[in-house]
Amino acid sequence: MKRKILFIDPVPGPIEPNFKSYLELGKASETELVIASIESGPEHLEYRFYETLVLRDILSLSVKAEKDGFDGVVIGCFYDPGLYEAREITKDLVVVAPGEASMHIASTLGNSFSIIVGRDKWVPRVLENLHRYGLKEKLASIKALGLGVNDFHKDPERTMKLLMKAAEEAKTKDRAEVLILGCTMQYGFYNELQENLKIPVIDVSLAALKYAEFFIDLRKQFSWKTSKACAYESPPMEEMLKWGIYPP
Amino acid sequence: MKRKILFIDPVPGPIEPNFKSYLELGKASETELVIASIESGPEHLEYRFYETLVLRDILSLSVKAEKDGFDGVVIGCFYDPGLYEAREITKDLVVVAPGEASMHIASTLGNSFSIIVGRDKWVPRVLENLHRYGLKEKLASIKALGLGVNDFHKDPERTMKLLMKAAEEAKTKDRAEVLILGCTMQYGFYNELQENLKIPVIDVSLAALKYAEFFIDLRKQFSWKTSKACAYESPPMEEMLKWGIYPP
Amino acid sequence: MKRKILFIDPVPGPIEPNFKSYLELGKASETELVIASIESGPEHLEYRFYETLVLRDILSLSVKAEKDGFDGVVIGCFYDPGLYEAREITKDLVVVAPGEASMHIASTLGNSFSIIVGRDKWVPRVLENLHRYGLKEKLASIKALGLGVNDFHKDPERTMKLLMKAAEEAKTKDRAEVLILGCTMQYGFYNELQENLKIPVIDVSLAALKYAEFFIDLRKQFSWKTSKACAYESPPMEEMLKWGIYPP
Amino acid sequence: MKRKILFIDPVPGPIEPNFKSYLELGKASETELVIASIESGPEHLEYRFYETLVLRDILSLSVKAEKDGFDGVVIGCFYDPGLYEAREITKDLVVVAPGEASMHIASTLGNSFSIIVGRDKWVPRVLENLHRYGLKEKLASIKALGLGVNDFHKDPERTMKLLMKAAEEAKTKDRAEVLILGCTMQYGFYNELQENLKIPVIDVSLAALKYAEFFIDLRKQFSWKTSKACAYESPPMEEMLKWGIYPP
Amino acid sequence: MKRKILFIDPVPGPIEPNFKSYLELGKASETELVIASIESGPEHLEYRFYETLVLRDILSLSVKAEKDGFDGVVIGCFYDPGLYEAREITKDLVVVAPGEASMHIASTLGNSFSIIVGRDKWVPRVLENLHRYGLKEKLASIKALGLGVNDFHKDPERTMKLLMKAAEEAKTKDRAEVLILGCTMQYGFYNELQENLKIPVIDVSLAALKYAEFFIDLRKQFSWKTSKACAYESPPMEEMLKWGIYPP
Amino acid sequence: MKRKILFIDPVPGPIEPNFKSYLELGKASETELVIASIESGPEHLEYRFYETLVLRDILSLSVKAEKDGFDGVVIGCFYDPGLYEAREITKDLVVVAPGEASMHIASTLGNSFSIIVGRDKWVPRVLENLHRYGLKEKLASIKALGLGVNDFHKDPERTMKLLMKAAEEAKTKDRAEVLILGCTMQYGFYNELQENLKIPVIDVSLAALKYAEFFIDLRKQFSWKTSKACAYESPPMEEMLKWGIYPP
Repeated sequence: MKRKILFIDPVPGPIEPNFKSYLELGKASETELVIASIESGPEHLEYRFYETLVLRDILSLSVKAEKDGFDGVVIGCFYDPGLYEAREITKDLVVVAPGEASMHIASTLGNSFSIIVGRDKWVPRVLENLHRYGLKEKLASIKALGLGVNDFHKDPERTMKLLMKAAEEAKTKDRAEVLILGCTMQYGFYNELQENLKIPVIDVSLAALKYAEFFIDLRKQFSWKTSKACAYESPPMEEMLKWGIYPP
Repeated sequence: MKRKILFIDPVPGPIEPNFKSYLELGKASETELVIASIESGPEHLEYRFYETLVLRDILSLSVKAEKDGFDGVVIGCFYDPGLYEAREITKDLVVVAPGEASMHIASTLGNSFSIIVGRDKWVPRVLENLHRYGLKEKLASIKALGLGVNDFHKDPERTMKLLMKAAEEAKTKDRAEVLILGCTMQYGFYNELQENLKIPVIDVSLAALKYAEFFIDLRKQFSWKTSKACAYESPPMEEMLKWGIYPP
Repeated sequence: MKRKILFIDPVPGPIEPNFKSYLELGKASETELVIASIESGPEHLEYRFYETLVLRDILSLSVKAEKDGFDGVVIGCFYDPGLYEAREITKDLVVVAPGEASMHIASTLGNSFSIIVGRDKWVPRVLENLHRYGLKEKLASIKALGLGVNDFHKDPERTMKLLMKAAEEAKTKDRAEVLILGCTMQYGFYNELQENLKIPVIDVSLAALKYAEFFIDLRKQFSWKTSKACAYESPPMEEMLKWGIYPP
Repeated sequence: MKRKILFIDPVPGPIEPNFKSYLELGKASETELVIASIESGPEHLEYRFYETLVLRDILSLSVKAEKDGFDGVVIGCFYDPGLYEAREITKDLVVVAPGEASMHIASTLGNSFSIIVGRDKWVPRVLENLHRYGLKEKLASIKALGLGVNDFHKDPERTMKLLMKAAEEAKTKDRAEVLILGCTMQYGFYNELQENLKIPVIDVSLAALKYAEFFIDLRKQFSWKTSKACAYESPPMEEMLKWGIYPP
Repeated sequence: MKRKILFIDPVPGPIEPNFKSYLELGKASETELVIASIESGPEHLEYRFYETLVLRDILSLSVKAEKDGFDGVVIGCFYDPGLYEAREITKDLVVVAPGEASMHIASTLGNSFSIIVGRDKWVPRVLENLHRYGLKEKLASIKALGLGVNDFHKDPERTMKLLMKAAEEAKTKDRAEVLILGCTMQYGFYNELQENLKIPVIDVSLAALKYAEFFIDLRKQFSWKTSKACAYESPPMEEMLKWGIYPP
Repeated sequence: MKRKILFIDPVPGPIEPNFKSYLELGKASETELVIASIESGPEHLEYRFYETLVLRDILSLSVKAEKDGFDGVVIGCFYDPGLYEAREITKDLVVVAPGEASMHIASTLGNSFSIIVGRDKWVPRVLENLHRYGLKEKLASIKALGLGVNDFHKDPERTMKLLMKAAEEAKTKDRAEVLILGCTMQYGFYNELQENLKIPVIDVSLAALKYAEFFIDLRKQFSWKTSKACAYESPPMEEMLKWGIYPP
């Protein structure tokens, strides 16, 4: 089945070539993948304020993507910024994000999971999403490494050491059966961790990309798509046009 | 104690004179109250997308308010848009919103409360906030009248009838001990309802205004103010200035 | 990607041709689908006792499937009988079942879902699974039609009427945003319901089949497979051979 | 706004002058504050049995306070003994207690809080109140110092050291964003802790006093007062007089 | 095994002969049952204030019972007044009450239960106990008949009709599998209800009596008795004697 | 009251004489106790797969027991295998198991309990049961000793040391007020632990045996027996006979 997906990197570009080829290896062969970053804004989204700065771009890219014939978008940040908003403002587009995708996948692969984030600051934000998705019961623990978003790839060996330590604690002390690497910028580490720890370690960008493909297929085959009752009911087009707020 | 509060009406102005005098009657005599609306945007915030359109204005008004010597801001919408973001981006400013304020007050006045909203669409949004504030156990029910934000004052008699019916059901069938009128545009109705039903009926704008005064006093007397650990940790000023994203 | 899936119909065959072609229309083109029923046993699984009668067959079919080169199995009953047991006793096999699959999918398509089951008897069994998967917060309601497993296709028109009535109540009164048809024998009804109600209606067999394909792909690409820590730790082969209990 | 508040110290007097001036510094200038202790009874309330010994006095002081024109009473113990009973037996009186007040305030100042109590014995009692107020989700941890109620001021330096250690653990390991000093006899310590830890540290007596002022204002301005439906429904006066149990 | 149990009727006597013989039929033959009522106080305990009036008597009767060689006491009110306090103040005495006993029994006999109480007023009080005992998940519903404690036996036929109606609704609509008659004064009705409804209907006085016998046996055989760590830690005798508050 | 109870040891016999006399000392004098093991199968039930192998035997022994005039059966494994199934397939038989019995008893003896199990593998299985019985709120912690079912009695001194260490941690750090020894093969240890720790330590086989006696008495006296509505509704005999699946 053909699929066309836009991966939105919600910070200013250009996309790192490494990350790009990483995603491309992850996609299905029938999937056409386009990666877009936003024009300007903060270089990471560790703060809620930073998220507000990119929401408009995420939404306008999503609406434009639907108009341009994309089947789905992936919002490339573990905070899932704009996920519910983009589902509301679009019509049939599949909208997916790393937090939701990885938590559902992890809940199916094991009885409980731990999330490894960068800093303590992120924890309440991630817990809020966990509540949103209704999966709080599955959480074993959240571990923080003491690293910012843009630190993970500065000294990959040190990052790997910190990851390994946190992961082992999560597995041994917190009885986590699955691990989630809670930032898209933790890309590239899952495989080595997984081989060492012998439990699944989820890379959240890859998880989101595959989740998008999965929901695109469900929509194409069975018309199972974002419900438009209550939570994701779209605003009336007439109203938006009258107020000059559409397209976003 | 002197207090200076900015009430942000997060839709384009001008403020209705009725609403203005309503708030002014509610404030304490030592409180200086300024009401500001935003320059342009949607005329109500029933949709998440509409909220994203006013977030920036809410934040820049908040930051400016702190710089201008205000003690606190009230974000005038029951969805509490930007509440956590404004707390994060400001320093010592008291930031308060109607949802959080009214739910804490209602939980203290009775053992359970019901919320009367306009439309079913609003329910998941309100429930999300209830979870956020940790007060889900106190909810008796959410009742929807089938009215939009801007319908409440079109035919006030009809609105009152619908409110009375929903309120009585909430009290009798759902055993609600307190009622929350879940939209700032339901202003003006609480008193008559309260006298008829003999249980407290919370007007959420007034609740938020008083909650702001309360937290301003706590800050002035005891330095109890928004914690800057984790959830509301502010972004580094240096970073924001470098990226040109401050002031918001 | 090539995939080979065994769909286990956990009641004695032969498989209804209608159901078979229904599943075949649902599978991806690269998927080879084999459907197996068990040799003898009860004709439905409404009772826990009946489930115990088919567990051994489900497990031996699963173990044999893994040996025979299958990538995954689907256990074709909404009670998900043997799901955790089959994950424990197999090694790398993807094991999927309709309850778990449909609940995760529904939680992603909307903010809450209702499940329409046959009889009140089923409700505690389904609730137990909902707790198991950690998704209780997402449940709007469970509706029972008053029909047994083998009644759904006796008078499809009457079934459709009952389904429509329950579905409308779930949507209107319980604010369900997505519906799950909580029995594999409710196959064939989802499409008409969905078109009428304008919200997603999940057929659980199709949901499970696609979920299996999805997890097979995740395993093949990223080695994300059932965690063998704690919950699904396999019994030691040596012990099983010594006691003569393997293969199951 | 004029307010008249009775602070009930539910152990035999006399009130410590230090504590008295502490409270007087905390009250608003328009507030008239009277402090009363009870005539005889245990010297602390660490045990449930001890609480039962002072309930009658708390209630009769409350009823008398209402008759004497007080607007509100504060029950001066973190266990909140008699809080619900006093709300039930009085009519319009504002009744407030340190546990409830501080937990609502802490939940608004940060995303989670820890409570520092004296001994492990207190923990189930405090958890029970946390459940009562519906705020369990906001708890980061409860720390016990190994000190009894009457130990806190025996060696204030040692107490401060123990508090600092517990507070730092709560902040660092349990990610508490706000701290509550869970005993009225921990008065006098909050300020130094707060300055060192850089997060809000709530003194529960002051919190209760201000909460009382706040709810008195709400009642005076908007008639928002204790709901008399269900939980706080008062017993019929006629019945009480007939049985000779009123005034309490 | 010999057992000696004191059943405390926490309202002024004399005990109704009907109720007395009812309990005597319920006890085991080896059980010696003494029934005591308190000297003066309210004639029912529908209000929290009324409970405070009898707490002292409940505790002094309990302490005296232990001294007099009783093995256990039953506190004869569904609100379980003084249950935790009596466990705290006694040493090895088994202390049991109808709410706790009936909820544990009902949870074992079926997957969910409903409680039928007299008036809506009682509901928050009963829910509080349900939380205390940790069994909230098992509750199907609470039904209120609109009758006070002393109304149940005024017109038993009418009471039976109201009970039957509430019970049928609980069974059919709320899917309750077991019913609890939530007041000791609903004695005498369980049997007829049970025979009609074909589900267990728990009389709470009998439930408490048998629960007391059960825990007495556990204590006598295995020394399993009320834990004295944390929740039920007794106050130091020395302290109580010094303050003149013992015996209660 | 006469009672006849079958204790099912769900692994192949013969029963250890020690264990047998242990149980016999625990039973009431009026209780006739028969112990049966199953004919063949795994020697322990640490794995879900192993449980499936003994389910049929547990059910056929239960059905036969009812036919043979037994009043109750105890399923002798802390995982409570077949508990719900046996209740469903029998008619009036009391069916009891160690997990459920000990958790209800522990919840009554203290405010929270810890469970000491053999290996981490068991934890999700035990947690699932805790959810089932609705008692999750009462759990302080689960401790794993690193021992398999058949290791406990290999070196009893070492086992006792490990138990003591885990128990002390549970009491001190996790504030457990009661301990449950979470495996029937931990028989014989409770008494010494209890005397050292000064909190109740529950032997789960004894707990189950007494719980069976208790529920037999409730049935005999008040006809309170397993509800046949929903969860434990029995399959229609006619259907089972037609399909040749009865007796199990």
